[in-house]
Amino acid sequence: MLKYSRHHQPENTTVEVGTVSFGGSHKPVIIAGPCTVESEEQLLKIAHGVKKAGAHILRGSAFKPRTSPYSFQGLGLKGLKMLQKAGKEVGLPVVSEIMSVEFLEDFLEHVDMLQIGARNMQNFDLLKAISKTKKPVLLKRGMGATVEEFLLAAEYLLEGGNEKVVLCERGIRTFETSTRNTLDLNSLALIKLTSHLPIIADPSHATGRADLVPALGRAALAAGADGLIIEVHHQPSEALCDGKQSLTLEEFGKFMGKL
Amino acid sequence: MLKYSRHHQPENTTVEVGTVSFGGSHKPVIIAGPCTVESEEQLLKIAHGVKKAGAHILRGSAFKPRTSPYSFQGLGLKGLKMLQKAGKEVGLPVVSEIMSVEFLEDFLEHVDMLQIGARNMQNFDLLKAISKTKKPVLLKRGMGATVEEFLLAAEYLLEGGNEKVVLCERGIRTFETSTRNTLDLNSLALIKLTSHLPIIADPSHATGRADLVPALGRAALAAGADGLIIEVHHQPSEALCDGKQSLTLEEFGKFMGKL
Amino acid sequence: MLKYSRHHQPENTTVEVGTVSFGGSHKPVIIAGPCTVESEEQLLKIAHGVKKAGAHILRGSAFKPRTSPYSFQGLGLKGLKMLQKAGKEVGLPVVSEIMSVEFLEDFLEHVDMLQIGARNMQNFDLLKAISKTKKPVLLKRGMGATVEEFLLAAEYLLEGGNEKVVLCERGIRTFETSTRNTLDLNSLALIKLTSHLPIIADPSHATGRADLVPALGRAALAAGADGLIIEVHHQPSEALCDGKQSLTLEEFGKFMGKL
Amino acid sequence: MLKYSRHHQPENTTVEVGTVSFGGSHKPVIIAGPCTVESEEQLLKIAHGVKKAGAHILRGSAFKPRTSPYSFQGLGLKGLKMLQKAGKEVGLPVVSEIMSVEFLEDFLEHVDMLQIGARNMQNFDLLKAISKTKKPVLLKRGMGATVEEFLLAAEYLLEGGNEKVVLCERGIRTFETSTRNTLDLNSLALIKLTSHLPIIADPSHATGRADLVPALGRAALAAGADGLIIEVHHQPSEALCDGKQSLTLEEFGKFMGKL
Repeated sequence: MLKYSRHHQPENTTVEVGTVSFGGSHKPVIIAGPCTVESEEQLLKIAHGVKKAGAHILRGSAFKPRTSPYSFQGLGLKGLKMLQKAGKEVGLPVVSEIMSVEFLEDFLEHVDMLQIGARNMQNFDLLKAISKTKKPVLLKRGMGATVEEFLLAAEYLLEGGNEKVVLCERGIRTFETSTRNTLDLNSLALIKLTSHLPIIADPSHATGRADLVPALGRAALAAGADGLIIEVHHQPSEALCDGKQSLTLEEFGKFMGKL
Repeated sequence: MLKYSRHHQPENTTVEVGTVSFGGSHKPVIIAGPCTVESEEQLLKIAHGVKKAGAHILRGSAFKPRTSPYSFQGLGLKGLKMLQKAGKEVGLPVVSEIMSVEFLEDFLEHVDMLQIGARNMQNFDLLKAISKTKKPVLLKRGMGATVEEFLLAAEYLLEGGNEKVVLCERGIRTFETSTRNTLDLNSLALIKLTSHLPIIADPSHATGRADLVPALGRAALAAGADGLIIEVHHQPSEALCDGKQSLTLEEFGKFMGKL
Repeated sequence: MLKYSRHHQPENTTVEVGTVSFGGSHKPVIIAGPCTVESEEQLLKIAHGVKKAGAHILRGSAFKPRTSPYSFQGLGLKGLKMLQKAGKEVGLPVVSEIMSVEFLEDFLEHVDMLQIGARNMQNFDLLKAISKTKKPVLLKRGMGATVEEFLLAAEYLLEGGNEKVVLCERGIRTFETSTRNTLDLNSLALIKLTSHLPIIADPSHATGRADLVPALGRAALAAGADGLIIEVHHQPSEALCDGKQSLTLEEFGKFMGKL
Repeated sequence: MLKYSRHHQPENTTVEVGTVSFGGSHKPVIIAGPCTVESEEQLLKIAHGVKKAGAHILRGSAFKPRTSPYSFQGLGLKGLKMLQKAGKEVGLPVVSEIMSVEFLEDFLEHVDMLQIGARNMQNFDLLKAISKTKKPVLLKRGMGATVEEFLLAAEYLLEGGNEKVVLCERGIRTFETSTRNTLDLNSLALIKLTSHLPIIADPSHATGRADLVPALGRAALAAGADGLIIEVHHQPSEALCDGKQSLTLEEFGKFMGKL
């Protein structure tokens, strides 16, 4: 019997990250922060801002999966340490994307939650290595992956012994190109029915447009999402990555105020 | 300048159907009823039920666009008259799908709102004929149509002189097959930004599963939809069409109660 | 039992259009001509050119299904008559797209083969009306239609009494946007296995790029296609429609020479 | 300037694997063998068979990327050694899929060509590690990856210093489910125009059906493919993996005879 299924476990799983609880008392859990860690100063400004607005977890990538080898690849370990420091300073747990088993020890030391990105959803080697740890995991759906493949990727983690899995719907690739991807709330709602794992949505990557993030964030929560992950930048037009889809601190504050 | 655009008209258009107003004071407008008109008795039972639950408009197809020529094709004109009668009896305006210019006069006589189905979104002949009437139109997005094509189909109606256009997002076709289609709320939210036309969502066709309809209905409203169209049947397992995606009267009542 | 199926009829159907035979002795059948009939002069130039290069049937639209109401909509009945005249002059049968039952009589009089376009594949009203005639039909697959829906659209024609059906794969809509559509030769080969109807491919619409048309045309024939329909224009850069995907007469001649 | 582009290098790249040359004198290069190495006996039977039929390279996976953690994961290093031995015995170079940097040394020792599978096309860690070797690479397109992403994944290899890159189109994920994937020959032909890298096609994974493999294999070559990779099994119904899409040795022999 598949471990992700409600046939295996009817009641919701809750995943604790520091004092934050996915699928439990905090609903919705809001993860926020910049696409990528750019500098200590940038990160602190954003960290203070999202904390003040009510976010529960700070995000920021230090290792970036970039389509082109010539794009900025992230600050690496240095960026990871900055993230940890910023999280401590503002009192928020931190999550960051891990792309390679090689850096697993560093991630275990410096972050509170590991993110497996959409491009690595079926990097089975990475899944197996992480399944042997006890660190909470945010597993993003591949942009071309079916619900079944998504849940079976989670199964690799559960089967290996790591039960702290939070799923994330981040948009799928469709013929429609007016937005970057298509947020698939059908699948999110279906997964809530069939699986006990918490699931959140990423309206930033799903839409690729800051002006659509609030509407889609609200829609995801209405569909049953246990939380959201949102890109926020103090100066989106200056961001090294994904500026178009980043909310300003002010926009994020307004969005949080309405929740 | 395109007439559907907010550059042409910044403020929202409201479309009146009887005393119901899309994009205006009634928010959300709820259209409900069976997939297809099966008999006077069936229709009246459902009409009374959805009216009691708070629906604003009664739906029911008399002419059915069926993938197979051997599937039930609808009761035709007889069904249209039953729909009109049921609407009058319970005090709800009615909407029904028109598939052919041939029956336009009959539709103008018997229904309060014309529905152009997904398969006919680019039946330009039908669009042009309907653009010459003053009857409110519910224009559904084709399952393989882009946002631009959808809005330009509406433009055929506006350009021809009919400004009473309500759009309907009903799910697009994607690689994901765990649900019948993928409700595209990205596009719905984008259309709210760029067009002044009202837009509703059809969570029944978008999901194909009654157990997902409430969650996706709520999500659509949270994304900014001006209303919903929902299939309701007093005995879904006996329905001649789309039973799997129809709410029972009880389920519909519960859903409406929570709105 | 479905009439399109090889279970119903194991041997290939042949469809005769004038002296040309789809699925029979002419393999491959090449249909060529401009996207749209622009003038008598243009049409004759192209007609003479494609005839000389070895084409079997002349194409040209007089009624155009245009995404925007502001795009050129075709010359209408006048264009249809020009097409007939040009076909007679060069000695080729002609095919043109019919969008509305209203003009069926005119089409029956002026063309040798009716084309049902991708956007009208499920215009059941049109299918039913054409099924009552004896005119050969070229039925194009909808860009968002499954193989099953495509074959069931053909079934509407067969069931109504018109057995002269030639299918046409013209590309489906996918996430890949580097070409206009994605030519689906998997489906073409599958249909050759499961149906006795002839099927051709349209590499012009499938790719949207003249420089890819020859390669995809050859690929379609290698996959089992019974013919091709190719857009040819004497001055593609001046074409009123789809110039980017039109071969010049010289390019078409070269392509035909290599077949 | 991007290194994969014909702007960077107008003439075709040829990639040598043993005495076989992709993009050069051997056209088409045929890679054949079982989905997975099951046993020495199985492998030898198939290796002798495909060699006799004219294949140029032997394939066989020892490490399998399986959607479910409960599916057979391959024989691992033991399987890799069997493959090397079988290749030597019949005189064919061998290619096998590498999923993890951890085993790179073993692959460098035991195989003639590394395969990067569709799920790992954007495993940038793996790409970077392999870019530092001189081993020829077969890079498969991700099933949800665009042409641009595919070519930029190749760029990671080229930029890192490994110029022996052969691309492989293996089908993309679309709404059409009558075949496992949709072979995208539009993209293959487009890549031939824009890139100097050799590209082959995988009709086995693209269709998922043995009865469609020959037609699509021929179509790919007609579209300009430099070769094919085909799954062959002596007893497809007994195969531990992908039996439905495997040709028998007899079918493979017949296919090669017609090339």
